[in-house]
Amino acid sequence: MVRLGAIDSPPKTPTILGFECAGEVEAVGEGVEDFKVGDRVVALPEFRAWAELCAVPTKYVYKLPDEMSFQDAPAITMNYLVAYIIVFELLSLRPGKSLMLHSAGGGVGQAIAQLVRTFDGVTMFGVSSKGKHEQLATGGLFDHLIDRADYVNEVRKISPEGVDIILDCLCGDDCNRGYGLLKPMGKYILFGSSNVVTGETKSFFSVARSWWQVDKVSPIKLFDENKTLTGFNLRHLLYQQDGSEYVKKVIDDVFGMWKDGKIKPVIDSTWALEDVTEAMQKMHDRKNIGKLVLDPAAEPKPKPATPAKVKAKKEKKEKVQSPSTDEEKKVENGTDKPAENGSGENGEAAEAEKPKENGDGGEAKPSENGENSAAAETNGDEKKQSS
Amino acid sequence: MVRLGAIDSPPKTPTILGFECAGEVEAVGEGVEDFKVGDRVVALPEFRAWAELCAVPTKYVYKLPDEMSFQDAPAITMNYLVAYIIVFELLSLRPGKSLMLHSAGGGVGQAIAQLVRTFDGVTMFGVSSKGKHEQLATGGLFDHLIDRADYVNEVRKISPEGVDIILDCLCGDDCNRGYGLLKPMGKYILFGSSNVVTGETKSFFSVARSWWQVDKVSPIKLFDENKTLTGFNLRHLLYQQDGSEYVKKVIDDVFGMWKDGKIKPVIDSTWALEDVTEAMQKMHDRKNIGKLVLDPAAEPKPKPATPAKVKAKKEKKEKVQSPSTDEEKKVENGTDKPAENGSGENGEAAEAEKPKENGDGGEAKPSENGENSAAAETNGDEKKQSS
Repeated sequence: MVRLGAIDSPPKTPTILGFECAGEVEAVGEGVEDFKVGDRVVALPEFRAWAELCAVPTKYVYKLPDEMSFQDAPAITMNYLVAYIIVFELLSLRPGKSLMLHSAGGGVGQAIAQLVRTFDGVTMFGVSSKGKHEQLATGGLFDHLIDRADYVNEVRKISPEGVDIILDCLCGDDCNRGYGLLKPMGKYILFGSSNVVTGETKSFFSVARSWWQVDKVSPIKLFDENKTLTGFNLRHLLYQQDGSEYVKKVIDDVFGMWKDGKIKPVIDSTWALEDVTEAMQKMHDRKNIGKLVLDPAAEPKPKPATPAKVKAKKEKKEKVQSPSTDEEKKVENGTDKPAENGSGENGEAAEAEKPKENGDGGEAKPSENGENSAAAETNGDEKKQSS
Repeated sequence: MVRLGAIDSPPKTPTILGFECAGEVEAVGEGVEDFKVGDRVVALPEFRAWAELCAVPTKYVYKLPDEMSFQDAPAITMNYLVAYIIVFELLSLRPGKSLMLHSAGGGVGQAIAQLVRTFDGVTMFGVSSKGKHEQLATGGLFDHLIDRADYVNEVRKISPEGVDIILDCLCGDDCNRGYGLLKPMGKYILFGSSNVVTGETKSFFSVARSWWQVDKVSPIKLFDENKTLTGFNLRHLLYQQDGSEYVKKVIDDVFGMWKDGKIKPVIDSTWALEDVTEAMQKMHDRKNIGKLVLDPAAEPKPKPATPAKVKAKKEKKEKVQSPSTDEEKKVENGTDKPAENGSGENGEAAEAEKPKENGDGGEAKPSENGENSAAAETNGDEKKQSS
């Protein structure tokens, strides 16, 4: 969505994309005490995560458990952070409740479904494109898999009175359709707006339409109908609403659940940085199940030697990567030796080859995770980062 | 509010008011197995609770714990039912959260505050008219008592960033003012609309104004701001949305908490049925702290012998009580002996004289609670009740 400019206040181009990365701390800013060079960390910077080196204020940096690989870290952190807040903070799950989840095959969707399964007796309707149902069924997380093409009618067939909870990362007209499916005492949680992305490029009209399509709701209507509407936007919480302390606590809990074996990250596929356009296209086409991970240590796929295609690829690649060198110099504070791209430990690289889980999961922003990919900056350095 | 016609679909007059009553079962309908004559019960009928005899479908009737008096029962059941659902179902309280409660001196307000206090580390702002602050302070439930005249500024003075939770039973313009006080990840819960009642009689304009005043909210605004809007309306849940099974479970839990000493009902005052107009006036003027209870066994206050006043009182009384005889005959199924008004046991009447708690609490609908006041009808008899 950032690539298409389909978010509020997108960064000025040229820029580096990416909200999540894992690696070792390469340098720390003045006064930083919580981190030291060599610490294994995951970070949630506001953009620029897809660089070999990335300066991040310490409030967005989190130490990794020793046992967590750089491939697992970005498949866990943001997805399960979102899922944890939704499941444990915004819902009150108990036996007998029913829940409908959009984008059930996505990385966040898979994380939510896993966390919901820590409660007994909740009926889960997973909505996704028909093509993913067979693979999703093997995960065994959902009671009912529903085709997104006609989900309102399909859910009504199984549960005529509707559902107790709807988790929506689509927005647009789906808000109105979903609201009608809510039972009394039901909760509608809007936590994404992926419907905004409809075409190949940013379209003002598709953005505007998906905004206009959403009906405003009077609190009195909610009062009459015994319903709850919730919006949850992690990006705003972190970068605009000073929620970093709260997020840090949640990530502690998430890592604890991972250590206890309650969380099993779902990685769709791992990609070399050079193949990012192909990875993005797969996500854009909603073909992934689980997270896509970018690994600077991975070998790029061999490309067919068609001159026209090579040229097109090169241009796209430059759009994403060319500004990175300048940015890095700024944030690296003099560490101007070339970043050691591809120098990941063999053990790590090998781990990235293994399939992590039995094949479920999907979506969300890919993240770099080679060695040296995250550097903790001083607390007071936010201005530097955004310079 | 029913008296003023300020609810949706008010009953046709003449009618009998009242949503809550306690007493012994006088008769049961055909096929009723859960209740027998003589059972001590509390009931939540849709109107008509202020009669000596009241027919109620069994789904709205709840057995009383042996130790619970007929005076305590109506001070507990509806108030704590509402409070329980709000506190345990709609909020996710944990240490560090802050909460602002409107009508803190009301019966529901007092019940909510008690239940919130079962959680550690929650900061509570209680909003009420200044005149009640001294008495409310003795209860020790609130961290801050706030004057309702200027609550937005008063709360901002203490907590410039606002609060995490707002519990609003007022509606109208207070919805908009309160929403602005919410922190990110905050929850606004609208569970009443007492602002609709502004004058002595029903005013179409005051009703309409308090509706128009409430701004509609886009789910996208909630998404941008990380906020939750909830409506909760027990009356709709019970009588229109088939929530009776759920409510029965909650009442079980509430009675359990009462047995464990976690719930201490707050009774403002107890009134003879003949003094109902005076009781209603006190509530209308927001002068009560805790519940007002109507007791058919209580002696009416001596009235000054001014002929004009007596006449006026008599007319008002007739408005409330005259239709009761007809209704009762219908629902009593042949038990046409006159209801034994005032035949409450001495023990009960004596208990009603004692102050129940140390003086906090308030609001909500008064309820009859003499002997013989609730009769359980068969499950299939809802039509009969509304005939």
